[in-house]
Amino acid sequence: MNKKVLSVLVDNTSGVLNRVAGLFSRRGYNIDSLTVGETENPKYSRMTIVVTGDDDIIEQIIKQISKLEDIKKVDLLEPTSSVTRELILVKVKTNATQRQQIYAMTEIFRANIVNVEKDSLMIEIIGSQSKLQAFLTLLEDYEILELVRTGITGLARETK
Amino acid sequence: MNKKVLSVLVDNTSGVLNRVAGLFSRRGYNIDSLTVGETENPKYSRMTIVVTGDDDIIEQIIKQISKLEDIKKVDLLEPTSSVTRELILVKVKTNATQRQQIYAMTEIFRANIVNVEKDSLMIEIIGSQSKLQAFLTLLEDYEILELVRTGITGLARETK
Repeated sequence: MNKKVLSVLVDNTSGVLNRVAGLFSRRGYNIDSLTVGETENPKYSRMTIVVTGDDDIIEQIIKQISKLEDIKKVDLLEPTSSVTRELILVKVKTNATQRQQIYAMTEIFRANIVNVEKDSLMIEIIGSQSKLQAFLTLLEDYEILELVRTGITGLARETK
Repeated sequence: MNKKVLSVLVDNTSGVLNRVAGLFSRRGYNIDSLTVGETENPKYSRMTIVVTGDDDIIEQIIKQISKLEDIKKVDLLEPTSSVTRELILVKVKTNATQRQQIYAMTEIFRANIVNVEKDSLMIEIIGSQSKLQAFLTLLEDYEILELVRTGITGLARETK
């Protein structure tokens, strides 16, 4: 059982997300994360979907998505030949001492503090899954008030 | 007609994305972007949905989403009281001169070059919509090979 990253180029129509989500839901495939946004061409959107499954399941999913209406192209992003990134915003409860500690952590991880309140601060961080996991592990010593992650997005290193 | 950002806390179940996407599709509301990922609590996921519509439509959407199964909370993220960010990966065709020019641009925008090939490079950039738009406008002088964006994610500045 591996996490696989699918990059799906679709027509920019209102129904296409529904069709893709419906396929996963009907078949009982679990979506770990999903992002969808515009591409370089406003006619198309690109979805990045992370799914967990063995090779057979993944192959089936790719076949079934490819058959849906408004789907242009489905690519499997292999770790060695692609770059994947995720963005996390996290709000942490802080007093003055903790504020300083967290500031030092963000410097090391090249994260940014994007908002400061009297008793909390908000951090933005972008990275690979391992970098983000390392950062979140360090944050376990603090009280996380809210956290939101975009889900993974990615591109193949080379363009065919 | 404004773009509005909804932050939706949901149970981490396989059907919930389908229900939300289905609601938008049936009612003909257009989703500009959608991200979904885990939160600080693995029981819940948080969706960030960007929709275009006047205040009445947005109010209706919030009401209808709130009624769906597995929905915990729907918040409207107002620009003044929240932080919103998006992550873009973009692959640009480059020769040696262009590589240098783009490197200079990434320094100004605090973007990072995450991959270099013989005739292309890939950039990661994170920011507000206006920053990302300014960067993409500068890139118009180059040939974009592929671009993927996560869609907007965000958090309220203060926790109630």
